[in-house]
Amino acid sequence: MAIGIFDSGVGGLTVYKTISEHFPELDMHYLGDTARVPYGSRSQETVINYSLQCAGFLVDNFDIDTIIVACNTASSYAIDHIRKKFKVNVIGVVEPGSYSALQVTENNKIGVIGTRATVRSGSYVKALKAIRSDVEITQTACPLFVPIVEEMLVDTDIADMVVRHYLDNMMTTGADTLILGCTHYPLLKNVIAKFYPDIKIVDSSEAIIDCINELKLNVNQHSKREIYLTDESPAFETLKNILAGGITAKKAVLKP
Amino acid sequence: MAIGIFDSGVGGLTVYKTISEHFPELDMHYLGDTARVPYGSRSQETVINYSLQCAGFLVDNFDIDTIIVACNTASSYAIDHIRKKFKVNVIGVVEPGSYSALQVTENNKIGVIGTRATVRSGSYVKALKAIRSDVEITQTACPLFVPIVEEMLVDTDIADMVVRHYLDNMMTTGADTLILGCTHYPLLKNVIAKFYPDIKIVDSSEAIIDCINELKLNVNQHSKREIYLTDESPAFETLKNILAGGITAKKAVLKP
Repeated sequence: MAIGIFDSGVGGLTVYKTISEHFPELDMHYLGDTARVPYGSRSQETVINYSLQCAGFLVDNFDIDTIIVACNTASSYAIDHIRKKFKVNVIGVVEPGSYSALQVTENNKIGVIGTRATVRSGSYVKALKAIRSDVEITQTACPLFVPIVEEMLVDTDIADMVVRHYLDNMMTTGADTLILGCTHYPLLKNVIAKFYPDIKIVDSSEAIIDCINELKLNVNQHSKREIYLTDESPAFETLKNILAGGITAKKAVLKP
Repeated sequence: MAIGIFDSGVGGLTVYKTISEHFPELDMHYLGDTARVPYGSRSQETVINYSLQCAGFLVDNFDIDTIIVACNTASSYAIDHIRKKFKVNVIGVVEPGSYSALQVTENNKIGVIGTRATVRSGSYVKALKAIRSDVEITQTACPLFVPIVEEMLVDTDIADMVVRHYLDNMMTTGADTLILGCTHYPLLKNVIAKFYPDIKIVDSSEAIIDCINELKLNVNQHSKREIYLTDESPAFETLKNILAGGITAKKAVLKP
């Protein structure tokens, strides 16, 4: 048995990388829907439709027991639909990230950043409040973060200016913890930490490790690693050495 | 008879707006494939496939005699395929823009900016060289321009910095003319002109007016204007008042 991971594109490779490092012998099949990325600006109906197709590809083609939805937008909108349709474990990024944030906050004030769709869905607000109802939450959509990462502009003045554009206001709310609610954002962690050194940054991909441990899966497999994309992707070529050990991607065709 | 216009998203509304202003009585049906935008980072095969579906939607649903491909990426990759499949006039943005640029350049040095896919396709280079073989061309992909426009950051320091990031180098080549090879870019025209006041800026949407005139279409129709989108679009809500007279979009479902 193995794990299937999907994301709207290549951002979920930050999750893939974290899991790879923690469980080096685990078998993993990654799918990036690069023919239709990004999901973050699409409607709920469209995100659910695309996400079910991605999950279907993983279940139909590989002997997996667990799907990891390594995309905050898909986790926000589609996870219940995936759980209902497929008889495997389904782990998203929203709940693990919310648990982690509540463990580390000391003043009960949490900031959440993500795509427009993730913020609009209110999924982190719901997940956080379900665990601790009196938590204070501020959300900000940061739509320029993904292109900054995919264009390798992380170490430029542009990234500095864009980070401050989105986060300066949020930091005045007194939040001591910041959830990176998009799988691309861990690559901006150092820029965020440079300007706001006191904030505790929560990266959901690390929180997923605990979920995998709780499932008590057999993680001693054959270190099989495959990456499938629905279209060629310049962003993948840019990021594959950093996040995927330079692996070559295969073409995936999804059923409508 | 009427005109059908399509684009990968909402950038083609700059073309829609220019045509609307020149031919106020023309009937026009606009389709934006907002469920799969952007095309600019996708492969040739995928762009052709999506473009044929868009053209098919316009031909199947409306009594049109002309399709305007208001997307540089689709014009670069798919226009011959659309011409072969559908028996209507097909106007892209690459050839009209190239003609205009060659009319205005005085030193025969032209810069072209666009998405990664448009630049990679070399379509402007081919079109320009086909008309004047000794023209000198420099191309630069500017992937951050589209999100800057869609996030309404045009009047910020971020836009200034990003414009200079992409264009400072190109301007050292001595080009006196710059083709805006992406339909979003006209909204950055003022920022570009601020930093490079001597460059002649070519906006393909204006060049299309001459093509429509040459076809000698009946442009005195009923001023019917419709906008269809394949998904809800925050970018459309942001830009509709500037580019589409505040019109409400309808939902389009494309055949695979």
